[in-house]
Amino acid sequence: MSEKRLEFSLSTDLPEATGFHPPNRRPTVPVLANEDGSLIGDASAIVEFLEATVPDPPLIPGEAMEQAEVRRLTSWFNSTFHREVSGPIIFERIDKRVFRLGEPDMAHIRAALEALGDHLDFIGFLAERRRWLAGEELSTADLAAASHISCLDYVGDIPWHRFGRTQEWYVRIKSRPSFRALLADHVPGIQPPRHYANLDF
Amino acid sequence: MSEKRLEFSLSTDLPEATGFHPPNRRPTVPVLANEDGSLIGDASAIVEFLEATVPDPPLIPGEAMEQAEVRRLTSWFNSTFHREVSGPIIFERIDKRVFRLGEPDMAHIRAALEALGDHLDFIGFLAERRRWLAGEELSTADLAAASHISCLDYVGDIPWHRFGRTQEWYVRIKSRPSFRALLADHVPGIQPPRHYANLDF
Repeated sequence: MSEKRLEFSLSTDLPEATGFHPPNRRPTVPVLANEDGSLIGDASAIVEFLEATVPDPPLIPGEAMEQAEVRRLTSWFNSTFHREVSGPIIFERIDKRVFRLGEPDMAHIRAALEALGDHLDFIGFLAERRRWLAGEELSTADLAAASHISCLDYVGDIPWHRFGRTQEWYVRIKSRPSFRALLADHVPGIQPPRHYANLDF
Repeated sequence: MSEKRLEFSLSTDLPEATGFHPPNRRPTVPVLANEDGSLIGDASAIVEFLEATVPDPPLIPGEAMEQAEVRRLTSWFNSTFHREVSGPIIFERIDKRVFRLGEPDMAHIRAALEALGDHLDFIGFLAERRRWLAGEELSTADLAAASHISCLDYVGDIPWHRFGRTQEWYVRIKSRPSFRALLADHVPGIQPPRHYANLDF
């Protein structure tokens, strides 16, 4: 939304929405609450809604085939990368501490870190061939990848020295005004490494 | 693709595609291979591509807000429903048998069946208020929900007698020509219940 220069406020109070989900289910976040009271759930549905209603600047740019590549990679990071890497690491290192769920399971963390290397290589592979991950323009693929990576970087799990090309791409994302604000967020009780919010790392 | 009256053939031979995924990763299915050799991965990217290039009939119909509801519910069935219900049941009842991975874990199946009831209620709740799940027109939300449910029905896990409204909606989906062909598919060695492919059940 910052990339589209939209004004918004963030809240952890979820709106009441009977029938929005089955009973007994936690709402899926994020939810976009429009000024008219209407709600949109699901990150990809929100992005597509914003693309349709606020097309400039596009975050799913190009013709149908280029857009397919943006959506494919966005799903890749939000599904596969999350399932293999960022989901388990955030659960083990952050959720367990914040919600007092016991000690991290080092076997789970090791498996996720092993998968991480392949994904960082893949990002470098893409960034070497294209200006941004899905093509010549910034897209939701870059924002999705960077949001997962910033969580891992916050807990010190990105071995940047082994992934120079990926680091160059990430420096470009970090320098965008929309991303600077995110880097100021802190998890109470967990300090990020010094380089976390620095552009020069 | 049948709903859009597109000709296609199905294949389990995945195309070679260096750089499409990170190394060491199984390709995510489905992949759409176009006649010009171009590939599109990820189910939602394929659907959006088909919507953009073959808009009639629409499967994400309506204006931006109606489309958001289609996409939200489609994601709900492909993510939450799959994670809680159809993923574990298919793994326990089908994958384990086909790939000889041992006996099904009845605790996992019981947890999934318990979640299933809430979801079938939710589908009935939607189908009572709208002609189709996301609104007045058939959409990918119906196709996604029905595809997961048909897998569960194949292994006899849908207690239809308790979910009359959901059953009425499912009869309408089953009667569509695009769906009839799917109901003829069989998993070798696993027989579906008699009602599985019948409209009158």
